[in-house]
Amino acid sequence: MKRVTSRDNRIYKLCSRLGTKKYRDREGLYIAEGPNLVKELLGSGRLRYVVLEEGFSERTADFEKDFFEKVSAGEDGRTDGPEIVEMPEKLFRDVADTVFSQGILGIVERDEPAEDDFFEHVGNGNVVVLDRLQDPGNVGTIIRTADAACYRGVIAMKGCVDIFSPKVVRAAAGSVFRVPVLFADTPSEAARLLKSHGKKILATSLDTDIRYYDVDMKKDTALIIGNEGNGICPEFFELADTLVTIPMGGVIESLNASVAAGILMYEAMRA
Amino acid sequence: MKRVTSRDNRIYKLCSRLGTKKYRDREGLYIAEGPNLVKELLGSGRLRYVVLEEGFSERTADFEKDFFEKVSAGEDGRTDGPEIVEMPEKLFRDVADTVFSQGILGIVERDEPAEDDFFEHVGNGNVVVLDRLQDPGNVGTIIRTADAACYRGVIAMKGCVDIFSPKVVRAAAGSVFRVPVLFADTPSEAARLLKSHGKKILATSLDTDIRYYDVDMKKDTALIIGNEGNGICPEFFELADTLVTIPMGGVIESLNASVAAGILMYEAMRA
Repeated sequence: MKRVTSRDNRIYKLCSRLGTKKYRDREGLYIAEGPNLVKELLGSGRLRYVVLEEGFSERTADFEKDFFEKVSAGEDGRTDGPEIVEMPEKLFRDVADTVFSQGILGIVERDEPAEDDFFEHVGNGNVVVLDRLQDPGNVGTIIRTADAACYRGVIAMKGCVDIFSPKVVRAAAGSVFRVPVLFADTPSEAARLLKSHGKKILATSLDTDIRYYDVDMKKDTALIIGNEGNGICPEFFELADTLVTIPMGGVIESLNASVAAGILMYEAMRA
Repeated sequence: MKRVTSRDNRIYKLCSRLGTKKYRDREGLYIAEGPNLVKELLGSGRLRYVVLEEGFSERTADFEKDFFEKVSAGEDGRTDGPEIVEMPEKLFRDVADTVFSQGILGIVERDEPAEDDFFEHVGNGNVVVLDRLQDPGNVGTIIRTADAACYRGVIAMKGCVDIFSPKVVRAAAGSVFRVPVLFADTPSEAARLLKSHGKKILATSLDTDIRYYDVDMKKDTALIIGNEGNGICPEFFELADTLVTIPMGGVIESLNASVAAGILMYEAMRA
């Protein structure tokens, strides 16, 4: 295994730069931290590098043995296999959140589907539209819940926190690898994409008496989830096919965005 | 208004000590940060002190004028009114998370209901049991969702992150003031409390085929929400009256605890 000892090394530099959205976008790469995520990526063909903290091998002998066996058996889906390097603790700490990485991280190639591929994958399933959400924990949790609720895709609006930032990838617990993401700049662009593929746009609103559970949102639904502070972009209300309300007791004005998303998306999972 | 300029001042010391659970428990007090939370507490009779950062009055003249009018009109529910003090930025920053406090915090008296008062308040409503949850964001979000879903109480198991820590209070967005909390040391103690007041214990499990939406959980239900990593304490499975599963697509093993809690608690809100 190659040992990276200098901050001039190209893999160290790559890891370090992938801390910024600009560079993640340019390279089409992002970082996934921790043994669970790295293991899950094995076989995806999208794992370009694996970076280990010195001592990881000794601490987690079983994990690594199994892992390397799979890599060498070609199970990673790449003929050349991901390149595996080791870094001394000092360098590794520069590029990783060591609490969560537990001494291992992967550099992953983005899946960037074209519009047609995205909607082919979605089929008559549902998608969730993230309207300028700011909290990485919320975004990751919504992608994880979307995956569990058999939602087939995510549309990230301009102004949303980067889907491929480490905190989102972590909170999504692997679902970022599975649920394809399409990007849209404006509500009208998103609506054009969605409607041309037969999706009904559904948004929550305080100005309706229709309860979410009285509406069929089992398929071909695009659910809009709004910004944590400001809610859904007003333009989406014009473009929506259906407005629903989530009833709330007492003086509560709103739910946490990822909880509201969970309640709504799970409508699709009812018999 | 009194101005606190020394770290020997009793209110400065109190604020500072309320950063620890031990002291919060001993004093029966906790800190609520930000104008929204402080405003909401006005009228509760539970606001003992209001601490302002120097300059808060100038920055937010409207808020303060209105606020002081209400205090002096006796609307705070205390004959003596909360004591209001001002601190220079330096001292205020010691005791507050200035990003969230926005220059104002309240020191609040806990509502610590006895068992009988707690269950009288709950009536035939539902309660949520927090089984050793560790993430303050999750706990706060669950209390907020419980309030919205008309759950009437929270039981916090020993080992749960402190309900009255600043992060929980913040994530709960005021619901900590409204939803009473009872504490229990062991699952058997919690079960004794719950069953003697007619509550059925409901837990999620992977070992059942009964879907959550096929079970009536509209009233007299105690919903157990398990620890983020380890799930529900095994003893609760023995004590539970009903086990249900939340179906999940693909390779997903679990949902975020606050999302799962939201999906389950909202069953009580369906017509």
